[in-house]
Amino acid sequence: MLKFNFQNPTKILFGEGRIADIAAEIDKDQRVLMTYGGGSIEKNGVMGQVKAALSGYRLFEFAGIEPNPSYETLMAAVQLVKEEKIDYILAVGGGSVVDGTKFIAAAVNFQGEPWDILAKQAKIKTALPFGCVLTLPATGSEMNSGSVITRRSLQTKLPFSSPLLYPQFAVLDPTTTYSLPPSQISNGVVDAFIHVIEQYLTYPVNARVQDRFAEGLLLSLIEDGPIALEDPQNYDVRANIMWCATLALNGLIGAGVPQDWATHMIGHEITAMHGLDHAQTLAIILPSVLSVKKEQKREKLLQYAERVWGITKGDDAERIDAAIEKTRAFFERMQVKTRLSDYGIEKASITKLVAQLEQHGMVKLGEKRDITPEISRQILELSL
Amino acid sequence: MLKFNFQNPTKILFGEGRIADIAAEIDKDQRVLMTYGGGSIEKNGVMGQVKAALSGYRLFEFAGIEPNPSYETLMAAVQLVKEEKIDYILAVGGGSVVDGTKFIAAAVNFQGEPWDILAKQAKIKTALPFGCVLTLPATGSEMNSGSVITRRSLQTKLPFSSPLLYPQFAVLDPTTTYSLPPSQISNGVVDAFIHVIEQYLTYPVNARVQDRFAEGLLLSLIEDGPIALEDPQNYDVRANIMWCATLALNGLIGAGVPQDWATHMIGHEITAMHGLDHAQTLAIILPSVLSVKKEQKREKLLQYAERVWGITKGDDAERIDAAIEKTRAFFERMQVKTRLSDYGIEKASITKLVAQLEQHGMVKLGEKRDITPEISRQILELSL
Repeated sequence: MLKFNFQNPTKILFGEGRIADIAAEIDKDQRVLMTYGGGSIEKNGVMGQVKAALSGYRLFEFAGIEPNPSYETLMAAVQLVKEEKIDYILAVGGGSVVDGTKFIAAAVNFQGEPWDILAKQAKIKTALPFGCVLTLPATGSEMNSGSVITRRSLQTKLPFSSPLLYPQFAVLDPTTTYSLPPSQISNGVVDAFIHVIEQYLTYPVNARVQDRFAEGLLLSLIEDGPIALEDPQNYDVRANIMWCATLALNGLIGAGVPQDWATHMIGHEITAMHGLDHAQTLAIILPSVLSVKKEQKREKLLQYAERVWGITKGDDAERIDAAIEKTRAFFERMQVKTRLSDYGIEKASITKLVAQLEQHGMVKLGEKRDITPEISRQILELSL
Repeated sequence: MLKFNFQNPTKILFGEGRIADIAAEIDKDQRVLMTYGGGSIEKNGVMGQVKAALSGYRLFEFAGIEPNPSYETLMAAVQLVKEEKIDYILAVGGGSVVDGTKFIAAAVNFQGEPWDILAKQAKIKTALPFGCVLTLPATGSEMNSGSVITRRSLQTKLPFSSPLLYPQFAVLDPTTTYSLPPSQISNGVVDAFIHVIEQYLTYPVNARVQDRFAEGLLLSLIEDGPIALEDPQNYDVRANIMWCATLALNGLIGAGVPQDWATHMIGHEITAMHGLDHAQTLAIILPSVLSVKKEQKREKLLQYAERVWGITKGDDAERIDAAIEKTRAFFERMQVKTRLSDYGIEKASITKLVAQLEQHGMVKLGEKRDITPEISRQILELSL
């Protein structure tokens, strides 16, 4: 096991009806800004529950945080926070709203050009406190300190993080997910699954617990993912998916083990250039990363094949290939296509994608930092 | 899944050599009291590492916190904290030292009779901040807010807890466990194993993740427990045991599921009356709890049999009995005896043990609160 630090202060309020409990988490005298995306929280009653819980508070609203939240939009929110002297932000929505809120919280009191927080990974010294009501299980942003922001004008999507950016609390009410369109559940399950894989399918360091926990999350997503699509109001299934997605990226399963975020980094470029959903890009890239790096990931791929997919027959190479195919088939079963060509992206785009990776410094990806732009090109070509 | 709150602010510093990092966690101007047990930390070099890390601090010492830490001893430490105007406590040792330190931290500024914190479960309003350097993986106290204290004069062992009593940090350096006597590793593995069981072997609530995580911890302890005895300086094995023990009782696997702490509560009375090690009492009582409540725990026992022990043959009753026998055999393999008679405790003691349970209000134990004193008597008789 590798050395690690682990600390995660976010308070989870889990279960049906827990939105009613948020007033206990925010001081009564705070000027609160509710951030959200489109109008879905109005239709499904979540906004009504939040307003009921916060009646008596000075409550402001900022709507329109889009999927792959944009720097341009968020800077308008930063302006509003300053004008209205906001003390506390409440993000209500999915991972994009939470990610966007983290950027707002970080940028408000940042000394200098806020774009540097992303482009130069400038360290922030303060952040506005914030909590969240999650309505879409996927990114894990509700219980971690990371965020990914897109600058549309530059076709650039960049991550940042700070220990100051853990949500103070996160309400996880599985019933808020009942009204999600199936594609968002599909994307969420695939996103969470791949978060786990990226902290698991590297090389062994004898970290038994982390491996077992990762496998437990994968098995749970495989068991409940399809049911979440077939039976949208199954409370326990939605609850399991929601808790899986949070635990997939709250730091726990990644503590003390190598990690490989190549799939995410290559995927970000596809979203920035072609506008695909985040999870679609991951479902395209992951199987190719596993294929291209199968020798390096050999031992963990064999463990994954046996423990997660029950594959025990065939020689090593056959079991590894079968596990990769099972992975791809799972994404397809979750209604997420796994080829660039499924989305109309052709070979001609690859050179530009690789150039963007280079421009963003993504030239040494993977757990061994050996996925060079040339290897990324191979991965993309295998994904056509 | 049941509703739950989960929040755990303790910072984990994991890995060899991490004691050197504690100065970053404690303000330089603090008057620090180091609490510990016997002299083992002097012999194995841990005390030297702590003193080196805290050179330049005003460092005080309180030695002699015993296994099953006693109210009598701890009140002497409370006196020292007051006299020396201590700001911060650093517990260095195993679960008993950490538990004892929690009581000191709680009692120092308690308004009223400190014994009420235990006897009347009086709520504390403040606690002195503290951190810990763990040297014995077992209780999980290093990352939770609970504690168990014994008042020798009353032969009484009682638990208490408060959200104010999470350690601010915990150093988990597996090499500090190399010099432990085998019996302490045996006890630690059994204690951690039973913590997991008590949050797992109840009735199903479709909490897939919690079940998989619990099973992952059990499988890891079964795999590495015996090796920890055979090969004391195997770093990865000691690391896995240490991380398992912490995660077994940090609130995570118990969030959203029923729990059954009957084994602990009955075990506490045996320790208080007969002085057995904590883990010995658990190893005696757990198999009997599972046998007596096997109908109520039927579904989870079958799941446990299959997923943890690989038992798939035989009818339900046979698989359940086989799983209980495997559990007992694991404790015996870990060199912990599993019968009251192994420790010279005879049937005549049972009436007194049951009377003590009643006196301490332990009259409705188990996940259904249906383990009455009469059922506790059956459990004890089956444990002879």
